[in-house]
Amino acid sequence: MFNTHGNDFRPHQPMRPGHEFDVIRMLMARWGELAVDIGDDAAVLPAMSGGQRVVSTDACVEDVHFRRSWITPFEVGGRAAAAALSDLAAMGASAEGVLVALVVPPAWQEHLAAVADGIGSQVRRAGGRIVGGNLSTGQTFAITLTVIGRAERPVSRAGARVGDVVVVTGHLGGPGNALAAWRADREPEPWARSRFAAPMPRFAEGRLLAAAGATAMLDISDGLAADARHLAAASGVWLDLDPARIPVGPGLTAASALESGEEYELLATIPPEALDTLQRRWAAETEVPLTVVGRVVASNPEAGDVNGSVAGHDHFA
Amino acid sequence: MFNTHGNDFRPHQPMRPGHEFDVIRMLMARWGELAVDIGDDAAVLPAMSGGQRVVSTDACVEDVHFRRSWITPFEVGGRAAAAALSDLAAMGASAEGVLVALVVPPAWQEHLAAVADGIGSQVRRAGGRIVGGNLSTGQTFAITLTVIGRAERPVSRAGARVGDVVVVTGHLGGPGNALAAWRADREPEPWARSRFAAPMPRFAEGRLLAAAGATAMLDISDGLAADARHLAAASGVWLDLDPARIPVGPGLTAASALESGEEYELLATIPPEALDTLQRRWAAETEVPLTVVGRVVASNPEAGDVNGSVAGHDHFA
Repeated sequence: MFNTHGNDFRPHQPMRPGHEFDVIRMLMARWGELAVDIGDDAAVLPAMSGGQRVVSTDACVEDVHFRRSWITPFEVGGRAAAAALSDLAAMGASAEGVLVALVVPPAWQEHLAAVADGIGSQVRRAGGRIVGGNLSTGQTFAITLTVIGRAERPVSRAGARVGDVVVVTGHLGGPGNALAAWRADREPEPWARSRFAAPMPRFAEGRLLAAAGATAMLDISDGLAADARHLAAASGVWLDLDPARIPVGPGLTAASALESGEEYELLATIPPEALDTLQRRWAAETEVPLTVVGRVVASNPEAGDVNGSVAGHDHFA
Repeated sequence: MFNTHGNDFRPHQPMRPGHEFDVIRMLMARWGELAVDIGDDAAVLPAMSGGQRVVSTDACVEDVHFRRSWITPFEVGGRAAAAALSDLAAMGASAEGVLVALVVPPAWQEHLAAVADGIGSQVRRAGGRIVGGNLSTGQTFAITLTVIGRAERPVSRAGARVGDVVVVTGHLGGPGNALAAWRADREPEPWARSRFAAPMPRFAEGRLLAAAGATAMLDISDGLAADARHLAAASGVWLDLDPARIPVGPGLTAASALESGEEYELLATIPPEALDTLQRRWAAETEVPLTVVGRVVASNPEAGDVNGSVAGHDHFA
């Protein structure tokens, strides 16, 4: 019934009465034409005429990834969707379909419409559609989002070459700064809070970097220091980062920005000869800053490493 | 490093040291060549030469979908994977890729290898690969699996036509019988227990039904009565089911089989003229029974319904 807007997804299936279906109907009402092909055992993805399809899954669990007292239900949904969608941006991909699996304790049912609106806002911004999901009760609120996208040329984290320039998008340090404030029972500064509560996946920027010939790319979810090591390990190289060049948020230090996770900015390596053209196109197409922060200095087939020894955070530690 | 077996997925990315990565490495060691393209922001799906790609997500939450005292950790993993994969079988699809999102409380960490083996056993049986996932701590153990498959002709639940024959695979009633026993503090009979603890997605049977021209199909996850209503509602028809023809497990009644959920058998409608050929091919290719249980008797654009009024179970009620 929403298949009248020129997309290639199938229409929804009519659903029977029942409380579980009422909840699904409420979600579909919030999402409107953003949701397609809901109600069958599986969604059918449109045929592709070129490029490659990429897929990733990401979970957001209450009291692990956020606390209810920190952010609003709308922000909980938006942040979970942004975190998942960011993995597509980091491949240089566009968003296509999203599957929304929710575990909803009784106390969260009244907030579900706002959570859905937050998810919807990010899926809409990314140009994707919600093509399915799963609803369950449970003791702990959790959102697990699976994102499906398309890329002309998916950029892995494994292709950095000696001599490449290391670049990063945006200003770093906000989410770490907000978390430190909340943990000290203070309200964060508005800029830092918004960087944690409402991150924006860098889709346009990821495609610009891919089109410029980025050799490796990932999103900064574990912190710049840790993710630089991930990229270095996957590529078998060493990165030389200059702390003085790291773009930090207002009032923040490079040391704190190196450790700040869940940034959802992009870290990429590009051939030095591609930098000029990239910077010209960049200035014309996005207001997000792009900063050169270092260089790929040596191949290291044993294990990747970067200057300094600041660790990223590890949910499992 | 596992990309040496002729599949089209990318190899893994080398990972850094760290406890979270140690857990991922342990999972990858359990899965062996079953896991591919792990460690990047997103997995790249192979190009397709024909057919359509289908996708579905399914969650299994402790104390909602199972209790720890009922089944082993291997069975927890296998059952979660079977439930998710069954949605592909119900489209007439083959399994391609699986994304495994786990929320693991501390008390479950020692069981994670067995859970992984259970997931792996079902992905292997289905002929799919594990292409990514997500690990999180949390208070409640949960597995959310996203499954990606391919079908020559995906069969929705919406195409049943007046005059079609209604068929069902397998013997029904086992899972409901096992649950009733556990809830009465009794150990279930072995047949009923295995139907709950180790369901087998009906991949070969789904493809046979699709190839025979099935007009509608779904898997029986909410119970035959409820899922017959889902199919009827989606197709805008009425189904006339004959309780005397419902294939039931040893010692069970049709009434209990109508209500038994999480069967993961297939319910389908097929044109009557296709039945003979289907039954001949069926006998040659599978030992799972196929039973005619009724007929599509009338179109009903208002709301689907079936004879009788037995409701399926509703996790959200």
